[in-house]
Amino acid sequence: MTVYSFIFYLTFAFQKFIIMYRTHTNGELRLNNVNEQVTLCGWVQKAREMGAMTFVDIRDRYGITQLVFDEEHTKIAKSLGREDVIQITGKVIERESKNKNIPTGEIEIIVEKFTLLNKSKTPPFTIEDKTDGGEELRMQYRYLDLRRNPIRKNLELRHKLSIEVRKYLDAIDFLEIETPYLIKSTPEGARDFVVPSRMNPGQFYALPQSPQTFKQLLMVSGYDRYYQIVRCFRDEDLRADRQPEFTQIDCEMAFVEQEDILNTFEGMMDYLFKKVKNIELKQFPRMSYADAMKNYGCDKPDIRFGMTFNYIDAITKNKGFNVFDSAETVIAIVAEDCASFTRKQLDALTDYVKRPQVGAKGLVYLRCNEDGTYKSSVDKFYNEPDLKTWAEKCNAKAGDLMLVLSGDLAATQKQMNDLRLHLANELGLRNPNEYAPLWVYDFPLLEWDEESGRYHAMHHPFTSPKTEDLHLLETDPGKVRANAYDLVLNGTEIGGGSIRIHDRAVQSRMFDLLGFTKEEAQAQFGFLLNAFEYGAPPHGGIALGFDRLCALFGGQETIRDFIAFPKNNNGRDVMIDAPATIDKKQLDELFIDVKEL
Amino acid sequence: MTVYSFIFYLTFAFQKFIIMYRTHTNGELRLNNVNEQVTLCGWVQKAREMGAMTFVDIRDRYGITQLVFDEEHTKIAKSLGREDVIQITGKVIERESKNKNIPTGEIEIIVEKFTLLNKSKTPPFTIEDKTDGGEELRMQYRYLDLRRNPIRKNLELRHKLSIEVRKYLDAIDFLEIETPYLIKSTPEGARDFVVPSRMNPGQFYALPQSPQTFKQLLMVSGYDRYYQIVRCFRDEDLRADRQPEFTQIDCEMAFVEQEDILNTFEGMMDYLFKKVKNIELKQFPRMSYADAMKNYGCDKPDIRFGMTFNYIDAITKNKGFNVFDSAETVIAIVAEDCASFTRKQLDALTDYVKRPQVGAKGLVYLRCNEDGTYKSSVDKFYNEPDLKTWAEKCNAKAGDLMLVLSGDLAATQKQMNDLRLHLANELGLRNPNEYAPLWVYDFPLLEWDEESGRYHAMHHPFTSPKTEDLHLLETDPGKVRANAYDLVLNGTEIGGGSIRIHDRAVQSRMFDLLGFTKEEAQAQFGFLLNAFEYGAPPHGGIALGFDRLCALFGGQETIRDFIAFPKNNNGRDVMIDAPATIDKKQLDELFIDVKEL
Repeated sequence: MTVYSFIFYLTFAFQKFIIMYRTHTNGELRLNNVNEQVTLCGWVQKAREMGAMTFVDIRDRYGITQLVFDEEHTKIAKSLGREDVIQITGKVIERESKNKNIPTGEIEIIVEKFTLLNKSKTPPFTIEDKTDGGEELRMQYRYLDLRRNPIRKNLELRHKLSIEVRKYLDAIDFLEIETPYLIKSTPEGARDFVVPSRMNPGQFYALPQSPQTFKQLLMVSGYDRYYQIVRCFRDEDLRADRQPEFTQIDCEMAFVEQEDILNTFEGMMDYLFKKVKNIELKQFPRMSYADAMKNYGCDKPDIRFGMTFNYIDAITKNKGFNVFDSAETVIAIVAEDCASFTRKQLDALTDYVKRPQVGAKGLVYLRCNEDGTYKSSVDKFYNEPDLKTWAEKCNAKAGDLMLVLSGDLAATQKQMNDLRLHLANELGLRNPNEYAPLWVYDFPLLEWDEESGRYHAMHHPFTSPKTEDLHLLETDPGKVRANAYDLVLNGTEIGGGSIRIHDRAVQSRMFDLLGFTKEEAQAQFGFLLNAFEYGAPPHGGIALGFDRLCALFGGQETIRDFIAFPKNNNGRDVMIDAPATIDKKQLDELFIDVKEL
Repeated sequence: MTVYSFIFYLTFAFQKFIIMYRTHTNGELRLNNVNEQVTLCGWVQKAREMGAMTFVDIRDRYGITQLVFDEEHTKIAKSLGREDVIQITGKVIERESKNKNIPTGEIEIIVEKFTLLNKSKTPPFTIEDKTDGGEELRMQYRYLDLRRNPIRKNLELRHKLSIEVRKYLDAIDFLEIETPYLIKSTPEGARDFVVPSRMNPGQFYALPQSPQTFKQLLMVSGYDRYYQIVRCFRDEDLRADRQPEFTQIDCEMAFVEQEDILNTFEGMMDYLFKKVKNIELKQFPRMSYADAMKNYGCDKPDIRFGMTFNYIDAITKNKGFNVFDSAETVIAIVAEDCASFTRKQLDALTDYVKRPQVGAKGLVYLRCNEDGTYKSSVDKFYNEPDLKTWAEKCNAKAGDLMLVLSGDLAATQKQMNDLRLHLANELGLRNPNEYAPLWVYDFPLLEWDEESGRYHAMHHPFTSPKTEDLHLLETDPGKVRANAYDLVLNGTEIGGGSIRIHDRAVQSRMFDLLGFTKEEAQAQFGFLLNAFEYGAPPHGGIALGFDRLCALFGGQETIRDFIAFPKNNNGRDVMIDAPATIDKKQLDELFIDVKEL
């Protein structure tokens, strides 16, 4: 085992490593260090006077240590301000009043020697777990915000996750291979960031939206297990919590089927949860896209809680309620123990579904009262036995609340999904420290685009159709399922991938279906198609959103504080003030002009 | 120890992992697998007929396995072409004639079932260790070139190195923190690649030449041990073996002095050599910049061999030889056991130093003959006793050859450095499998720029002057040495760094010296200077060229084949044909025009 030689070398390295500025970090000293003379460095967290003495908390990345400045030194201590950088030497003593909340809380240091390493201006917000700084101010002074424990812990978690991802993949023969950042723009898909080339006037590189084509080329090259933790770029109008640059765990495997990939990355998730959070994932269900849409109305269901969909068309139609009668579908969910919802609460839910972002026309409810009676908002049309069949059909029990939406199938599924998640949030059913991963598979291969009047690839044009659906390619292309899958965690898609086409005949049919001429296919994907002529193995892969994965592991919803230097919703880094104008000389060298604005 | 739980989890992952396409790789089977039924996949390396049988070598990333197609199947085998992708099932048998050159050479597989997974066109060059493909063709079909063993081994070495770098740094509390790729252009230094911003019309991001400012900000933020294996970009006219995008091991530490950084990264090099190449580095000398220039005429000496400089002005001048008399300096090196060099060899050396790239006017030699006599090209001016003093001064012994250059100090040092390296190459003294690392330190802080008539920072404006030279800042700035250092390996600079200024008074003096007004300093480095107001700790760092490190570990001089998808000397990726023109629509969205060319 190489562990021993590794430890040997580290010891060796440490012996060589003479720490000059400090003997210990601020998270390190314990009772067994009492009476040692130590030197510490760090930032002044706070100071407080107690008679002739002054107590100063000194902070670094590793923790906080309490310093005691006695009468002789207290004048120095009084001159200290928050965030001053100091170095002290002194003796470790046992504290009289111990602080059990911090690991160094049993000791303190009697300061004997003091050096002010750097003075700090008063920071614009407090460097505390709960800071008084607003979002904008903290973004502007990101370097100060990064000093706060919650953000530091996020970045430490990110580091830990990346180390463990690499350990797992390295141990099962994956190779990390770096792919280029200066590549070629493709008109398909999202918008590229481009980079003008000075050496090739009038020409542009593009920054990769993902290393997709390169990883497929690597499969052609025989690197049958590739990964990369890699930056990707997408020039999209930024929705909340999207970044123009983001990090992906990008993977591809050859000589595999879908099952191999699902198992490999299910194994990775198991491993990460165990190693990073000490959680044993109990279940890792798999669900077809069709079932996800049917039962949850969305392709990334949050399965930490129930409230699955019930289709109650058969028992609700033809009772004179025109809304249901004219609807393509009627869907109900059951909110357990919510029969006691007040009128106000029900109105709020109705308002919620009627918001333009959700788009429902109204909401029908059915209270399954504790006494066995039923009360609905459509009592006019349905009698007690009718309502009872609703409850029975949906397994609603006394004390539960049923919520019903109706309309076109797709729209109603989407609305009910919104309502389900909204209600779960309200009910506290989405515990960020509970983890429910899920594979969703058998996505449709194609989606019909009304505007262009043709099919588009749902994933990308190299995604493989399922063998058993191949015959439908000619007769009913919209029904063809793909060997495509998403990894979903707590209702968030954290990864997705597919088995790729490696058979030229299938690829050719695929391009026909997508309306590509041979020339167009060659112009857009030429180098990959050429490569496929020289012995492409069966292959497939997956890409995981690393920022999002970190946020979920951190039990948070937004990715911004898991990125050291994020951009705002306008794609700006407000700390460094980028983007910015550049010199005319630079523009000239690049053979470009900025248009009159 | 976490090793066990790690192994547990991998076992768990493997159990889940059902390999469907193959039971083994092509590097895996041994005598103890005899009689097993196996399924293999891979590329056809070659086929040869032997009577009714056909032998086919099947290749993947892991190795080569010999297949035997018997009479029944030989027709299939005969139809196979090089690089076809096949899957076979068959029985492992012991070979009659074993091949000791490959790990699977004791067995072969009797093919029972065969599937052609993909046909290949005949590749444009052979996929062999020694290929018949030229550089250009191989770049165009890079995905085929990557199949060749030598390139695959390079990329595997790169992966191994990155894993071990991370292991070492992770174990001593370094955090890998990702810094942004879309940053701000700075007019100082090399040329930036820029990225027009669609959301901020007329404004541009720049791609980082290095994360320098961000890593210093992270020190201000308290992340006292940062690293990142990170892509960097430089829009320079490409010299041979430079890439517009390159990878750096970027590191920074706080609360350290130069000695701490040298020790930490010396430890890393020791560790990497031991782990990756099983080499114990015996020596890791340190040499001042002044000594390097004096003894080797360059700041990155190759110390695998001697031939250090001897300054023989005192004993060569005033003997009537005008060339030496009028020279600022006379420098000699001793080539051991080279007295027997022929006239032709000496002429070739003279021609070498007279090349415009070297620029010497001529070369003086002195043969120390085996019989104790001396023969020089300047016998006219120097008698036997004179020449003897040369030899004695330089410790040249009988059988050695002395080579002498003269002229201005800096020019002569440079020429002699060129000659020394050239001669060492000729004599085979630069063994790529011998490793001689070296720290060069105490670089000058400033260099005088004739054109602008002012000093420039040799490293960058945040590099710290040596405390003991601080007083010279006012009186003789050119003499001030910096806390800057380079890591040199076999005559190649593989890394460099410095202790940064963290004291605002020193920084201010530095900017004055560099001719910055307060406003200019603020405009260019504002966010960093602002950050320095809020408690910057003493800090310093280093960046290592990862591509170059990989090449040196691979015993090679050029980096190109240690990068999966490199660019050519015009910055082009000839495989994907990038850069390329982009749509007018894209230009319009970015508010830019391409100038008429």
